[in-house]
Amino acid sequence: MESETRTEIIEATNRALCEHGYADLTMQRIATESSMTTAAIHYHFDTKEELLNAFLDDLIERFERKLCCEASDPRERLNEFLDAVFTPSDPTTDDFSVAIMELKAQAPYHDPFRERFLDLDEVMRGVVAEIVEDGIETGYFEETDPDEVARLVTTILNGAHARTVALGEPSDETRQVLEHTIEPHLGWTPGSEVIA
Amino acid sequence: MESETRTEIIEATNRALCEHGYADLTMQRIATESSMTTAAIHYHFDTKEELLNAFLDDLIERFERKLCCEASDPRERLNEFLDAVFTPSDPTTDDFSVAIMELKAQAPYHDPFRERFLDLDEVMRGVVAEIVEDGIETGYFEETDPDEVARLVTTILNGAHARTVALGEPSDETRQVLEHTIEPHLGWTPGSEVIA
Repeated sequence: MESETRTEIIEATNRALCEHGYADLTMQRIATESSMTTAAIHYHFDTKEELLNAFLDDLIERFERKLCCEASDPRERLNEFLDAVFTPSDPTTDDFSVAIMELKAQAPYHDPFRERFLDLDEVMRGVVAEIVEDGIETGYFEETDPDEVARLVTTILNGAHARTVALGEPSDETRQVLEHTIEPHLGWTPGSEVIA
Repeated sequence: MESETRTEIIEATNRALCEHGYADLTMQRIATESSMTTAAIHYHFDTKEELLNAFLDDLIERFERKLCCEASDPRERLNEFLDAVFTPSDPTTDDFSVAIMELKAQAPYHDPFRERFLDLDEVMRGVVAEIVEDGIETGYFEETDPDEVARLVTTILNGAHARTVALGEPSDETRQVLEHTIEPHLGWTPGSEVIA
């Protein structure tokens, strides 16, 4: 399939999912959000599940690109990671967070969704563990278990996501909880200015 | 309404919700799970939303009762709290966790759901803050900010819930993350034996 067609279908899926939610997502609604017919979409994706798998793959890919930052200082990289996970990337983010929450709730019934959420979790844990490891090596962070910190960070991020959706908690409040929590592990305050 | 009737309807809602999920929950399916007709259920609850509000009220009430423990030692109370939140109360818990996740995803569109999740969060934070406060007063825990620890605990619990549903992560793994995280705040290891 041409990459442009794929991108168009996935973007239409994103919009339809945010607007109607998982339960009311239909091929017709995805078609309405695109310039294509349902038959044309069906030609590329047999089922709604296949389409949502592609949507999640795309999400993970974009997330990985967002996390590739230029900084070499591990403190800057940690700040940029937190900016990336806590800063809305576009104005539809509220609906988007809800859509992801709905897909998470479907994971027990759709193995391909679960696999993708496990992938995303591994990517995130990997990035954090690497930053922490570099921070210890370069002497900016205290001795600590990078995998344990990574696991703590992702668990709190999962909690932050749920709290944004269910409670409407502002993300800067949960960001603060996260920063305070990992500070004693690192011996450095995330979010603080980095002086080389 | 008689309390027995209310209990029967709410229990039927619970079963129907766990079996069919939020999107496919209908008054008919709730009636099928009970000994009542849809007309009889409608007589007590006008809409599906009203019924789910009552279901969430009942959930919070049961949760509060579960948290009322007999122990006076704050360390024991913390252990009992963690047992209560991490131990499945019945074999349908998996589906139940998923159902709650679905309702959380609906909170942005249903204010009464959001209010109830905010209530539940307040109850949990209150219980944890009180235990920590008592622990500091009695000298079992180190000086720390009880509200901050309570906030951290509930955020990690929200993350634990999402990880159970989306990733299938065993709850004892997230419990360990939580215990390790609050240990330095309290100067005591949750889950360890309490010697008076």
